[in-house]
Amino acid sequence: MEYKTDIEIAREAQKQPIQEIGARLSIPSEHLLPYGHDKAKVGEEFIKSIQGRQNGKLILVTAINPTPAGEGKTTTTVGLGDGLNRIGKKAAICIREASLGPCFGMKGGAAGGGYAQVVPMEEMNLHFTGDFHAITSAHNLLAAMIDNHIYWGNELEIDQRRVVWRRVLDMNDRALRDTVTSLGGVANGFPRQTGFDITVASEVMAILCLATDLEDLQRRLGDIIVAYRRDRTPIYCRDIKADGAMTVLLKDAMQPNLVQTLENNPAFVHGGPFANIAHGCNSVVATTTALKLADYVVTEAGFGADLGAEKFLNIKCRKAGLAPSAVVVVATVRAMKMNGGVAKADLGAENVDAVKAGCPNLGRHIENIKSFGVPVVVAINHFVTDTDAEVQAVKDYVASQGSEAILCQHWAKGSEGTEELATRVAEIADAETSDFAPIYPDDMPLFEKIETIAKGIYRADAVVADQKIRTQLKDWEEAGYGNLPVCMAKTQYSFTTDPTVRGAPTGHSIPVREVRLSAGAGFIVVICGEIMTMPGLPRVPSAEAIGLNDDGQIEGLF
Amino acid sequence: MEYKTDIEIAREAQKQPIQEIGARLSIPSEHLLPYGHDKAKVGEEFIKSIQGRQNGKLILVTAINPTPAGEGKTTTTVGLGDGLNRIGKKAAICIREASLGPCFGMKGGAAGGGYAQVVPMEEMNLHFTGDFHAITSAHNLLAAMIDNHIYWGNELEIDQRRVVWRRVLDMNDRALRDTVTSLGGVANGFPRQTGFDITVASEVMAILCLATDLEDLQRRLGDIIVAYRRDRTPIYCRDIKADGAMTVLLKDAMQPNLVQTLENNPAFVHGGPFANIAHGCNSVVATTTALKLADYVVTEAGFGADLGAEKFLNIKCRKAGLAPSAVVVVATVRAMKMNGGVAKADLGAENVDAVKAGCPNLGRHIENIKSFGVPVVVAINHFVTDTDAEVQAVKDYVASQGSEAILCQHWAKGSEGTEELATRVAEIADAETSDFAPIYPDDMPLFEKIETIAKGIYRADAVVADQKIRTQLKDWEEAGYGNLPVCMAKTQYSFTTDPTVRGAPTGHSIPVREVRLSAGAGFIVVICGEIMTMPGLPRVPSAEAIGLNDDGQIEGLF
Repeated sequence: MEYKTDIEIAREAQKQPIQEIGARLSIPSEHLLPYGHDKAKVGEEFIKSIQGRQNGKLILVTAINPTPAGEGKTTTTVGLGDGLNRIGKKAAICIREASLGPCFGMKGGAAGGGYAQVVPMEEMNLHFTGDFHAITSAHNLLAAMIDNHIYWGNELEIDQRRVVWRRVLDMNDRALRDTVTSLGGVANGFPRQTGFDITVASEVMAILCLATDLEDLQRRLGDIIVAYRRDRTPIYCRDIKADGAMTVLLKDAMQPNLVQTLENNPAFVHGGPFANIAHGCNSVVATTTALKLADYVVTEAGFGADLGAEKFLNIKCRKAGLAPSAVVVVATVRAMKMNGGVAKADLGAENVDAVKAGCPNLGRHIENIKSFGVPVVVAINHFVTDTDAEVQAVKDYVASQGSEAILCQHWAKGSEGTEELATRVAEIADAETSDFAPIYPDDMPLFEKIETIAKGIYRADAVVADQKIRTQLKDWEEAGYGNLPVCMAKTQYSFTTDPTVRGAPTGHSIPVREVRLSAGAGFIVVICGEIMTMPGLPRVPSAEAIGLNDDGQIEGLF
Repeated sequence: MEYKTDIEIAREAQKQPIQEIGARLSIPSEHLLPYGHDKAKVGEEFIKSIQGRQNGKLILVTAINPTPAGEGKTTTTVGLGDGLNRIGKKAAICIREASLGPCFGMKGGAAGGGYAQVVPMEEMNLHFTGDFHAITSAHNLLAAMIDNHIYWGNELEIDQRRVVWRRVLDMNDRALRDTVTSLGGVANGFPRQTGFDITVASEVMAILCLATDLEDLQRRLGDIIVAYRRDRTPIYCRDIKADGAMTVLLKDAMQPNLVQTLENNPAFVHGGPFANIAHGCNSVVATTTALKLADYVVTEAGFGADLGAEKFLNIKCRKAGLAPSAVVVVATVRAMKMNGGVAKADLGAENVDAVKAGCPNLGRHIENIKSFGVPVVVAINHFVTDTDAEVQAVKDYVASQGSEAILCQHWAKGSEGTEELATRVAEIADAETSDFAPIYPDDMPLFEKIETIAKGIYRADAVVADQKIRTQLKDWEEAGYGNLPVCMAKTQYSFTTDPTVRGAPTGHSIPVREVRLSAGAGFIVVICGEIMTMPGLPRVPSAEAIGLNDDGQIEGLF
């Protein structure tokens, strides 16, 4: 049997005008700012006008630790949204925007796959509505104003060795990781060592995704710490007087983007913070807006549940006052096999024992999510080579953990393949059994917050950190930042800090290498391992194969 | 009397939906890609479908050498377009897009002024439809792919000291002019010295503005020389295999943007190459599209006529097969006074003698334009302090040069203030007296082309250039680039290379400091003086005053 590629399926989409998609959520067309015929931003005034409404029910889609086999978290998010609409519910989807840089490297797009996709796929993987470009501009304006301040006399007494605000580009460009700027003499300023991160790693991105409105956005931008003086006192973005102009640059970007699934159901695609050095979920504005407009909102969090769901629940939900009614954990038979020790090349052969051996990774995630007081259901994202016995093994395992697993075939069949999942998720959400609470309180000391996650979620025995790091955390507590949540930056491939350790390990420790204060976003980043904030391109970048075909269609984006 | 500011007037605009503006040019709404309710891109397919139509008449608006008094070239372009519509002609305007960087520095916007403005003014001075962001991305993708090629083994044998492709940002950031990249060890590549230019200075910008369609765009992008080998042989963008992906990134940006004037007349705002190291006019696609849709198309060129009109006529018209029917030279009484030796502080007082003393600058430009075979009319852009005697002095001077000058009051009155100018321009254009030809043929040797402009336009006695430069030009002629036009980069404030020399000087020489080959754009840049390709911010950047007011409106952009 021949399968169509994602892009072939996306091209066959029978898209409806975006005004009709908006109408399904009762958004008047004058409050939809169109970008072409199939994308629109939802106007700020309209969003303000619906704040008094009741919220719909929030459903989080998360996953096991990612493996090279692929899990299909976004695909399942889209499939579940379509499934809920299929069974007659008014449902909307909330996902992140794709980063331009990785599209030209080796990463696929972020719009789902098969018959569970969001369209227009090409635009979503390119400039979309320009939000990331706006973030790049706002971030780099602040950088230029810092160096400009130093150039013109440095009234704020910035220690040039302690400028912590780098620059960003939405590009995979390893040459920019570590640079010296302001060479070339007096007219170009004072040389100093700095560098560039990819735009999604910008604190401005995290801020945009957590801000509730433009006022909150500007306040948070003003709170960014950009540098320190020789006496270690911080200098804020507000001191540089960049917060107003940055807000103006981000005015449109703050409005959530509306697009549609292949089945013409509404999807909000907005924001895309890194899932390691930031919290990795779509914007609070998009999620809260969707909750006012739909009865069910399906959203996802980056990476596996240990990183993504943990941060969604401990950071985003805490900050935005959200409480999920149900969590779906996506697993695949193939990923279970890899967790059970099978190599990628051997995934095609049936291996029930390996599936069983890999299931504890899934079990650990289920248990973790339950510790937040939220009901869990497992979605088995079906792959064509999966055998009935293998699928049954996963179902049996999940049942033995007191949960249930449902086979989903949305990749091949669209919403027809998620009817059962949608029905069950709606039942769970409607039963209102969720009793959500973050797993640590605001007023817990910062180091204890790290320990709570390391022990409660990663199942480590201990957190290892130098005195310097512990002192830094204490200093921040004294400076009034002790009530912030912690944002863990760790490999997504394992519960441990070793990406090769699969399954459900115990007995390990979590070394904290560095802590960073994101005062504007409002969290402490805890770095446990190598974190790359500017990716590189591979030997043969996918950009080499991207181009227009003879019909003017885009080839090579996927 | 109190005058409203530009932004106050712009906010009061009674904008029509962009579909209605398109309808005035018979563009079906399905071929207008909306960006919000007041901006749209004109679809590529529609543009292809109208290629067989007759062209309307092209009118170029240019100016005397700019002075701190301000001339109002864009304002007059808008005013004339509105005036033509007022007298019953079907007219469209074509102007350049504004660069984001300077808006946060000290420069005003580029949307006209008073009652002769294009709206939405704020968006045009911010992200607009994202064209410049697309150019930034395409430019920097190529840069990343060059360093990536070297990193993975340098199969093309690029001499790392001879990479000529820099990076760009749409930002005034002097710290990025001169940098060292790829520091930090093996994983980050090979350290080398490079830097950033502002996006408008990118060759990609010049290419986008000269390309006739996507195919031509990709061919030109492929032709860009990015580096040289040790044996000095060039390496092209095509060798790096970046041209396809760059074209994909620029696909939407190639479609011209349609907006409206305060009087609801159609205006195309598309492209914005630097007027010194590039040719400084809006895109060929916008101009040729407008000519198919309107009977009269009013456009402008950057800086004074010696630079802007010269390049418009010798580069853009030559390359795109365009021929203007009339040229309007904008002058002001105040600028004449400054050319006559009056300081800016003293411009308020009547000084007919100074006006007369300054007029030869205007006369020189009139004479120059006529040398291209095109009829000229002078627009005196009225300022409130101008006296009747001063205005009459300009009119008398222009009459003595065999041309005519018409007083225009569009800034204060909109199209009512340009009725006379519009009537006269339409008469001239309809009389079809224009006999346009570039002032040098394609096959003239490159150095002679430079001399033709220096002697014919700048009225210099000689061009001074080192043997090295002459040899370089010879080498390019041998390599097949001898038929390219030359793109002069010189101060815009004087006919000489000394910005302080006003009026109509003679007896000077033009020193050529450097020549650069823009093989993709298709011209040789001839640098005569200091050319800044990355501006800096002033001591108090205007960004500090930009912000949202309590009504959510943008303040501080002007």
